[in-house]
Amino acid sequence: MTANGEAEAKTGGKGRALIKPQLLSGFRDFLPAQMLLRQQVMGILREVFERHGYEPFDTPALEYAATLTGKYGEDEKLLYRFTDHGGREVGLRYDLTVPLARVAALHANDLVLPFKRYHIAPVWRGDRPQRGRFREFYQCDVDTVGSPSMLADAEAIATVADAVRALGFPQFVIQINDRRVITGLAKLAGVPDEGAGQVYRSVDKIEKIGPNGVREELIARRIAADAADRVLELVTLRGTDAEVLAELRERAAGFPDVIAGADDLERLLGFLGGLGVPRDHYALQLSMVRGLDYYTGPVFEIAVERPKVGSIGGGGRYDGLIGSFSGRDVPATGFSLGLERAFEVIAEFGLLPPIRTVSQVLVAIVRGGTDDGVQDALALVTELRATGIRAEVYLNERRGLRDQFSYADRKGVPLVALVGEDERARGQVKLRALATREDRLVPRADAAAAIQAALAGAGA
Amino acid sequence: MTANGEAEAKTGGKGRALIKPQLLSGFRDFLPAQMLLRQQVMGILREVFERHGYEPFDTPALEYAATLTGKYGEDEKLLYRFTDHGGREVGLRYDLTVPLARVAALHANDLVLPFKRYHIAPVWRGDRPQRGRFREFYQCDVDTVGSPSMLADAEAIATVADAVRALGFPQFVIQINDRRVITGLAKLAGVPDEGAGQVYRSVDKIEKIGPNGVREELIARRIAADAADRVLELVTLRGTDAEVLAELRERAAGFPDVIAGADDLERLLGFLGGLGVPRDHYALQLSMVRGLDYYTGPVFEIAVERPKVGSIGGGGRYDGLIGSFSGRDVPATGFSLGLERAFEVIAEFGLLPPIRTVSQVLVAIVRGGTDDGVQDALALVTELRATGIRAEVYLNERRGLRDQFSYADRKGVPLVALVGEDERARGQVKLRALATREDRLVPRADAAAAIQAALAGAGA
Repeated sequence: MTANGEAEAKTGGKGRALIKPQLLSGFRDFLPAQMLLRQQVMGILREVFERHGYEPFDTPALEYAATLTGKYGEDEKLLYRFTDHGGREVGLRYDLTVPLARVAALHANDLVLPFKRYHIAPVWRGDRPQRGRFREFYQCDVDTVGSPSMLADAEAIATVADAVRALGFPQFVIQINDRRVITGLAKLAGVPDEGAGQVYRSVDKIEKIGPNGVREELIARRIAADAADRVLELVTLRGTDAEVLAELRERAAGFPDVIAGADDLERLLGFLGGLGVPRDHYALQLSMVRGLDYYTGPVFEIAVERPKVGSIGGGGRYDGLIGSFSGRDVPATGFSLGLERAFEVIAEFGLLPPIRTVSQVLVAIVRGGTDDGVQDALALVTELRATGIRAEVYLNERRGLRDQFSYADRKGVPLVALVGEDERARGQVKLRALATREDRLVPRADAAAAIQAALAGAGA
Repeated sequence: MTANGEAEAKTGGKGRALIKPQLLSGFRDFLPAQMLLRQQVMGILREVFERHGYEPFDTPALEYAATLTGKYGEDEKLLYRFTDHGGREVGLRYDLTVPLARVAALHANDLVLPFKRYHIAPVWRGDRPQRGRFREFYQCDVDTVGSPSMLADAEAIATVADAVRALGFPQFVIQINDRRVITGLAKLAGVPDEGAGQVYRSVDKIEKIGPNGVREELIARRIAADAADRVLELVTLRGTDAEVLAELRERAAGFPDVIAGADDLERLLGFLGGLGVPRDHYALQLSMVRGLDYYTGPVFEIAVERPKVGSIGGGGRYDGLIGSFSGRDVPATGFSLGLERAFEVIAEFGLLPPIRTVSQVLVAIVRGGTDDGVQDALALVTELRATGIRAEVYLNERRGLRDQFSYADRKGVPLVALVGEDERARGQVKLRALATREDRLVPRADAAAAIQAALAGAGA
């Protein structure tokens, strides 16, 4: 083949143009050990999502740019956008919520409502890469389309709580607030409209910089001191959830949206216990702000303190998003879990057993002078596979046993099986357990059963 | 939220700007029933690939454009290319082979060779959409990096044959040829270099247009009639594989590349039987041509006659591709199965049972005047899930039983469980099997066991 020139090309030893092999910054290759861990995690999530009655679902990586724009606030600049072969403005999927809303509008007649789906897929954002933040990363979302009930919000929270518990997280808290309450904060405190955005941004930092830090920041940004105090009073109300919400309702007289938000929060919180979410895994948190433009009701965020990775996901209700496509309002709510930060927690605590290889047994080739030894090995590997064993034959008949054992060792294959001249003459197979270096001979006819037993014993 | 204007916007009933919900041509949404089928198929493929010792693996959707260009011949124009936020020229993955070669060059020191990986992932090509051809589609690849042995090629073929058999395909043939033999055709027939491309294109059509059609086309494209005859003689040699290859070798005296190709083919064919590939599932086919620039040795194509979908995948050896990145030649070979055409075969023959929903039981809500009925339903659904049952509660407590039963019916949920006032008073749960409309009452404490038994009986 002719290697392509271009900017990165240099000339290789044989006079051909070389393309420097490189990965785009913020993107990752997953080699088998990492991929096996990821598959394990995604398998657990899928199982929990399905146990809660969410159905699998997928959408394209590419959407019309017009579908994606106007949904993500100032982060919209991170969208990967371009013009395709047909001159269409397109963009790479930025989250899994907007594509769901587009589907719910487009396939409105094909969906049985309430429609519950999960979606585990990559999304793309041209963000500045940093530790734990990538330009291509997986989201794992559960959403319900077509129910205005707080049961749908509670189910999303209960499902994510179950999923994170199934992964073995020792600690996490799902913080719960409501978009109408957040918007009401500025109004209730008497902050003029142009200062409202600043109120949300500052309040959201309360766990990082403390109430005094928030107060100072608000005043520095020209919010009146008494208004800043009122904001802080509201977001630091103390008491049981019922007490906090009662107090909020009292202060919100004349702000029906805030009262509706408080009512929904009370109802939502009341359903979480019934769905088995342990009390230490969720909390009403009036200072929690979620930035996406499309939220209309309750919003959630899942925070992990140990290790200090912060938010590993969030979600909320977006009753207007589907209507922005169809013109007909369809209520919807959901929760999105970020896989990449979840992996940091899994790695930190070693929550899942590492798997080095899928391969359970290597059939080594003892070639001798002819291909007879190769055919013996092929027959054995084929027989093992037929019994369901994950077996491979060493894929180079010109290499000696030393190379083959080294391969099994470096890969982490637990067993090597071989038929040498002696074994063939005696109708036997030699099995070596690599962990102990112990060899044993078994009758050729019993090879599959002996290997099954050895693997069951080793837990492989 | 503020819906975005742009070209597609129109004004909705409430005076807001609407974005028409639309899918890009050549792209697809997968609703749950389709997705459940796809997951089933991918699960079977994964299982077979792992049984053959291939490890899972993934690479980014986006690569530097320079990585992708110069690899795909004239089809390179189908690449989705654009300039990213940082001014880098990037492209969407066009196949799974070139990214593997890039990884093998980049991570050369992290891979234990021979490195066997499988990769099931979407690729993107800006092709003209037509029946069974999409702009986003899944490929399922198995490849071995680091072995020059024909065992690696044979293993790829045996794995794909096993996979397609596991999917239940009643008929398929893996056609086998060699790039050096194909290139030799024109030379052996005395066709001048500038006519060689035409020879490959015409010969590849032999199954469609017949030998006479190929002859006429070659002559029409200014290939001399006697050269055309010699080409046809070569690609229609008859006899056993050994006889055909012996004849080819004899005619290829003085063309060492063709002889090396024939030798490799003989060795490769000799391994397939040992790996358990039934004789009717592979064939030496000297007229089969694969177009990709990077092939260097044996090439394969899997053809399905019933239904007439043609090729559902192909592959071959590409010993120069990794070296085009690293400057150091590393042999490699593999086979790529296209998921989308495979689905046509699966649908045509109904090879896999359709699954309508993951949900095994709907817990209906009998609300009465208070939320007590809701809490009963939540407690029951939580208990069922704890025993591993895929259970959902109807996510709107304001709807009546009629709506809830209709939901279960339309979705295909086999069982509905409910606790009404009578049942609560008697400590019972009512179960309805939707297929038979039969109701029965079970003690509340036995609900999970009774549902497990009912599901086992219904095979759900």
